[in-house]
Amino acid sequence: MTSAHLSRELATFASQLKLEDIPPEVIERAEDLLVDWFGSAVAGKGARAVEIITQFAQNMGGFNDVHRGPSEIISSRKTSSPFFAAMANAAASHVVEQDDLHNSSVFHPATVVFPPALSCAQAIGASGKEFLLAAIAGYEVGIRVGEFLGRSHYKIFHTTSTAGTLAAAAAVGRLLKLNPEQMLHAFGSAGTQSAGLWEFLRDAADSKQLHTAHAASTGLMSAYISQAGFTGAQHILEGKQGLAAGMSNDADPSKLTDRLGARWAIAETSFKYHASCRHTHPAADALLQVMLSNHLHADDIAKVDTFVHQGAIDVLGPVTNPNTVHQSKFSMGTVLALVAYYRFAGLQEFDEHFHDQAICAFRDRVTMTLDPEVDAAYPQRWTCKVKVHLHTGQILDGRIDEPKGDPGNSLTRAELTDKAMRLAAYSKGASPEEMQKAIDRLWNIRKEVKMGPLLPQA
Amino acid sequence: MTSAHLSRELATFASQLKLEDIPPEVIERAEDLLVDWFGSAVAGKGARAVEIITQFAQNMGGFNDVHRGPSEIISSRKTSSPFFAAMANAAASHVVEQDDLHNSSVFHPATVVFPPALSCAQAIGASGKEFLLAAIAGYEVGIRVGEFLGRSHYKIFHTTSTAGTLAAAAAVGRLLKLNPEQMLHAFGSAGTQSAGLWEFLRDAADSKQLHTAHAASTGLMSAYISQAGFTGAQHILEGKQGLAAGMSNDADPSKLTDRLGARWAIAETSFKYHASCRHTHPAADALLQVMLSNHLHADDIAKVDTFVHQGAIDVLGPVTNPNTVHQSKFSMGTVLALVAYYRFAGLQEFDEHFHDQAICAFRDRVTMTLDPEVDAAYPQRWTCKVKVHLHTGQILDGRIDEPKGDPGNSLTRAELTDKAMRLAAYSKGASPEEMQKAIDRLWNIRKEVKMGPLLPQA
Repeated sequence: MTSAHLSRELATFASQLKLEDIPPEVIERAEDLLVDWFGSAVAGKGARAVEIITQFAQNMGGFNDVHRGPSEIISSRKTSSPFFAAMANAAASHVVEQDDLHNSSVFHPATVVFPPALSCAQAIGASGKEFLLAAIAGYEVGIRVGEFLGRSHYKIFHTTSTAGTLAAAAAVGRLLKLNPEQMLHAFGSAGTQSAGLWEFLRDAADSKQLHTAHAASTGLMSAYISQAGFTGAQHILEGKQGLAAGMSNDADPSKLTDRLGARWAIAETSFKYHASCRHTHPAADALLQVMLSNHLHADDIAKVDTFVHQGAIDVLGPVTNPNTVHQSKFSMGTVLALVAYYRFAGLQEFDEHFHDQAICAFRDRVTMTLDPEVDAAYPQRWTCKVKVHLHTGQILDGRIDEPKGDPGNSLTRAELTDKAMRLAAYSKGASPEEMQKAIDRLWNIRKEVKMGPLLPQA
Repeated sequence: MTSAHLSRELATFASQLKLEDIPPEVIERAEDLLVDWFGSAVAGKGARAVEIITQFAQNMGGFNDVHRGPSEIISSRKTSSPFFAAMANAAASHVVEQDDLHNSSVFHPATVVFPPALSCAQAIGASGKEFLLAAIAGYEVGIRVGEFLGRSHYKIFHTTSTAGTLAAAAAVGRLLKLNPEQMLHAFGSAGTQSAGLWEFLRDAADSKQLHTAHAASTGLMSAYISQAGFTGAQHILEGKQGLAAGMSNDADPSKLTDRLGARWAIAETSFKYHASCRHTHPAADALLQVMLSNHLHADDIAKVDTFVHQGAIDVLGPVTNPNTVHQSKFSMGTVLALVAYYRFAGLQEFDEHFHDQAICAFRDRVTMTLDPEVDAAYPQRWTCKVKVHLHTGQILDGRIDEPKGDPGNSLTRAELTDKAMRLAAYSKGASPEEMQKAIDRLWNIRKEVKMGPLLPQA
C-alpha cells in the first residue's frame, strides 16, 4: 500500500471514466444534482457579493456584445471566456445556501463542479453526455479529496474551497480529455492553488463566494494548462510538502481511491431543504418533528437544547449575533427560530425575519452542545438530538437520523423542479418560462448534441 | 498588545503611505529593484512554463490587436486586462532565478509586486511616482507577512506564493487609493486565496511560475473587488481560523507591524548574483573566495562540505539528481560545480553545462550539513561555511557572512543595468535598444506622468 501512488490512481480514474461504467441510477442522480445546482446558480443574481465578482470578471475579460465569448454568465446573460464564466457562476451558485452538500466530505460539490464544467463544455462544444460525465468525475474526485483532508482540515479551511479546486480540475480535465498523466499534472497545479479559510465567517465577510469563484477558475486553469503541457507535483495531495502535510493533521490517504468504480459518491450527495448551512438542518428537522407531533406553537417553547457534532460547533459556534442575512444562515439559533415560527427556514423567511425581535429572542434561547453519539456518526451521517423545553416545564426529546434532502430522505424530481423554480422567482434571475425551458433541457441533458447557453443572452 | 489589531495597523500603513514619508535612499533602492525586476521579467520570454501561462491568459482574456487591453504582457508584446497581464508577467519574472529576495522573510518580493502594480498602473493611468510608491507598499507588507508566517510555514509553503498574494493586494490597493478599511478587506480577500506548496520541486514541476502568477492575479483581484465594496475577514492573518492558524506553527504577530514607518524592509532586499536559488549563494561565494585566494582549479578539489542553515536543507535537500535546468538551480552541488569550473553560476552556465559529466561528478561530491552557528543567524543573515577538500589531502576553510547582492555587498547601478541587459539578451525578450530605452525610463520612473508600456507593442 505504501508504494501505491494514490493520487495517480485517482487521476487515472477521472481521466478514463466513461458513462458506460456508471450505473443508470447514478447518472439520474447526477441529473437531479444538475437541476438543483442550476436553481442555486440563478438564485444568486443580485446578491452584492456575486454582482461584484461578476462585474470584475466582465471588466477583466475583454468581451462585449460585439466581441462575444463562448461561455455564458448566468446572472448577467453576458458572455465571457470559460475562466471568467466559471468564476462568476461559481460565486452565484453559493450565496443563498441552497446548493448541495456531501456529508462525509463536508464539501459542496455542485458549486465548484458544474460552473467550470458548463463553461468549458460551452467553449469546446461538448455534448450533454460529456458534460454530465465530466461533472460526475468532478464529484467523485472532490468528495474523496474532501474525505482525505478530513476533520482537522475543516476546522480551519473551507473544504469546498480547497478540495473544490481539485474537483473543478477533474471535471474540466475530463472534458478536455486529459490522459491520466496530464490529469495528474492538472491535480498538481490545482492542489498548489488550493486555499480558503473560515476566518471570514466571524465577520460575516463576503469570502464564501470568492472561495467558490477561486476554486472553479483556478481548477479550470489547471486543466487547461496541463493540456498545454504544464507540469505539476506528482503527489500534491499526499506528498511530504503537499496539501495534507500543510493543511491537515488527520489526512487519510486511503480515502483518495476509496472503492473507485464501485462506490459512486455522487449518489450520496444531499439536497438542501432549508436555506441555511446544513449543519443546522438535522436540528431544524428534529425541532419541526417535535413541534408537529405535539401540535406546538413557537410561543410554547422556552428554550431548545441541541446536541450536535463537532462540525456544527466549528462552523456555527462563532456566529452568536448575526448581522446579515447570509451570516444568520450560519446561526443555529436563527434557523431554529425561523422553523419554530414559520415551519421552514427558507429564503423568504430569512430575508424578511432573520432580525425580528421574536426571532432574535428565540435565537438566544437555543444552545449547542457537542454530543458524543452524534459526533461519532459524523461526518458519515449528519444526525441531531434536541431537547425542547416548554414554558409548562415539560421537556420533549427529538432526534433526526436523516434530515430531509439526504439520500435516504431525498427530494423527488417534482420537488427539485419546484425548488429550482422558486429559486429563480426569488432572485428574478430568470422568468418562469425561461426557467422551465432550461430545466426541461437539463432533465434531458443527455440529448444535447452540443452544449449551448441555458438562458437567453443579453 | 493583545487588543491591538495588527493586520489593521498594517493595512492602514499601506493605505496611507506617501512618498514624502520615505527616505530618499529607500526610494532609490526601490528604483534599483525595479530595474532589476524588469530584467528578470524580460528574461522569462520563451520559457515553456511562462509561454503556457501567457497563452492561457491571452486565450482567456478576449483581447486582440483590434480590441486592445490597457496593460502590457511583457513577453509577448500583446495587451490584456490588468488581471491577466499581472498573471503572465509574474510568471515570466520568476523563471530564470535572477529576481530579488528578502532574506529574513524568505520571500521574493519583486516577482509578485511589480507585475500587478505595473498592470494596474497602466490600466488606471497612474504616474511613475504612484507606481513606485505602490510597489514600496507591497514590499513593506509582503516582507512583514513573510516574517510573520515564519520558518515553519516555509517548510511546506512557498512564502513568495502565500505572502505574495498580500503583497500584490497591498500594492494594487495603494494604486487604487483604498482607504484603510478597504485595504483591510483586500487583505482579507487575498489571504483567503493564499496558496503554494513546495511539493512541486521534488518533481521539477512547473509550479513555481504558477505560484507567482496566482499570487499576483488574485492579489490584484482582491484589491479591485474591495474597491467595489467586497468585504473580507478582519483578521485573516492572525485570526483563529486564519493564515497563521492554518499554515504556521511559529507565527509571530508582532512582525506584522514591525517598526512601520521606521524600518524600510524594502532596503534589506538582496539582488541575486548567481542564477540559482539564493540558498546556494552563500556557499557559492565562499567556495569562490577559497578558490580565488588559493589559485585553485576545479580539478584540484576532491569534495566540498557546506555548513548551511535550515532553509537550505528544506528547499535544496530533496534535489539530489536534478533533471532539468530549473531544478538544477535548486541543487547545491550543481551550483558549486558550476562555480568551480566557470567562476559563475549564470544563465548560460546552467543552460549549457548543468548536466555535463564533470559537473555531475563534482555535484555528487558536495555535502550539506545543518550548522548551528549558520542556522542561528538565519533568516536575518544568510551565511555559510565551507570545507574544501583537495586531492592533496589539504582542507581549506571558507566562510561568507554576506553574499554578493546582499545590502551590505550590493550591486551598483551600472552592475544592475548590465545584469538587466544580459538577461534581455539571454532570452531575446527585447533588443538592446529597446532594453536600454526601457531601463533609462525606469531609472527616471519618477518623471513618468502616466505609466504606459515599457516595450513597443505588437
